[in-house]
Amino acid sequence: MKIITISREFGSGGRELGKRLAEALGFAYYDAEILKAIAEKSGLAEEYVNDVVEKTSMWYMPITYANTFSCYNLHEENYFKVIRAQTEVIKELADKSDCVFVGRCADAILSELSPLNIFVHANTESKVIRCRKKAPEHEHLTDKQLRRKIKAVEAKRRYYYKTFTHNKWGDKEHYNLCVNTSNKEIKDLIPALAEYCKAFFG
Amino acid sequence: MKIITISREFGSGGRELGKRLAEALGFAYYDAEILKAIAEKSGLAEEYVNDVVEKTSMWYMPITYANTFSCYNLHEENYFKVIRAQTEVIKELADKSDCVFVGRCADAILSELSPLNIFVHANTESKVIRCRKKAPEHEHLTDKQLRRKIKAVEAKRRYYYKTFTHNKWGDKEHYNLCVNTSNKEIKDLIPALAEYCKAFFG
Repeated sequence: MKIITISREFGSGGRELGKRLAEALGFAYYDAEILKAIAEKSGLAEEYVNDVVEKTSMWYMPITYANTFSCYNLHEENYFKVIRAQTEVIKELADKSDCVFVGRCADAILSELSPLNIFVHANTESKVIRCRKKAPEHEHLTDKQLRRKIKAVEAKRRYYYKTFTHNKWGDKEHYNLCVNTSNKEIKDLIPALAEYCKAFFG
Repeated sequence: MKIITISREFGSGGRELGKRLAEALGFAYYDAEILKAIAEKSGLAEEYVNDVVEKTSMWYMPITYANTFSCYNLHEENYFKVIRAQTEVIKELADKSDCVFVGRCADAILSELSPLNIFVHANTESKVIRCRKKAPEHEHLTDKQLRRKIKAVEAKRRYYYKTFTHNKWGDKEHYNLCVNTSNKEIKDLIPALAEYCKAFFG
């Protein structure tokens, strides 16, 4: 199987890049549907899984729960349930067909299959512009608030990645290609990237 | 003008990549010839220029010279002469035609012209293999010696880059593309990279 994993800074256009690349190559594309599959496999609510996988680390728990030792243990148990399910789901999907994964530490989970690992990043200015374009209608954040949001999301991704893989998120040596999308339209880069992927898999 | 700069780890195949990319795009290619031009412009010996530009920083000087203050000043003066000449030569060449520069901090010198900056890197194993392939006939280094050589050359490049640009050499945010050449043949990557360059310049 040919597997591509996309890790990305918030607002870098990494998700769009992954989706378009999958389309260009005729590969399956996995992103949000992984959450659903993890929820099914682990028997936990999708919202809870999302909290663990997307937003938090093992040490996260609602502050109101933090007072009792038993709840702590429950959270820990569920955390490992999610992690195990995530690993299984991603491996099962990777076994089905050529595919592109966005996020979810798929690069680490599938490392034995030698995936093509791409990291997508951009300068803060470009990320702010892209976040503004993609913001839901009701969101009216200032540039400063957007910069803070970007930092916060990336800090969580960095921490989750570190906890899960023991590697530093975004360190170029863990990726085959690091693409800087500052001031670029994602769609303009796709034909060349698709060509690169074909060359990579030989 | 369309300008591509290549920075590279020792043994990553960055020079070959730059040369092949220039050929594929029909761009001029500048590498060793820059040294000659700097020597001519500064009135200093090519060997001395090479010592400053390739191997050392401002604080390098032959140990036998280090005892007298006047020699120190002379070295400092020559260092700045080389740096000025390097900046002028690279700017002049960039003004002539579309081109590819390998090394020499061209990415920083030409930053106002928005070049496409590529960083080429690889894991140590791949670099050792590539260094062994390209070694001169009389060189018979062990893997350990080669690893030490790679580290030493890269430490010098890192230090020179830091002194000259105040940036961290190899930090992905300073480059448009970071290409990991581990276990790859450079020539196989060229068509896709040439395509990427065309998309980048629009």
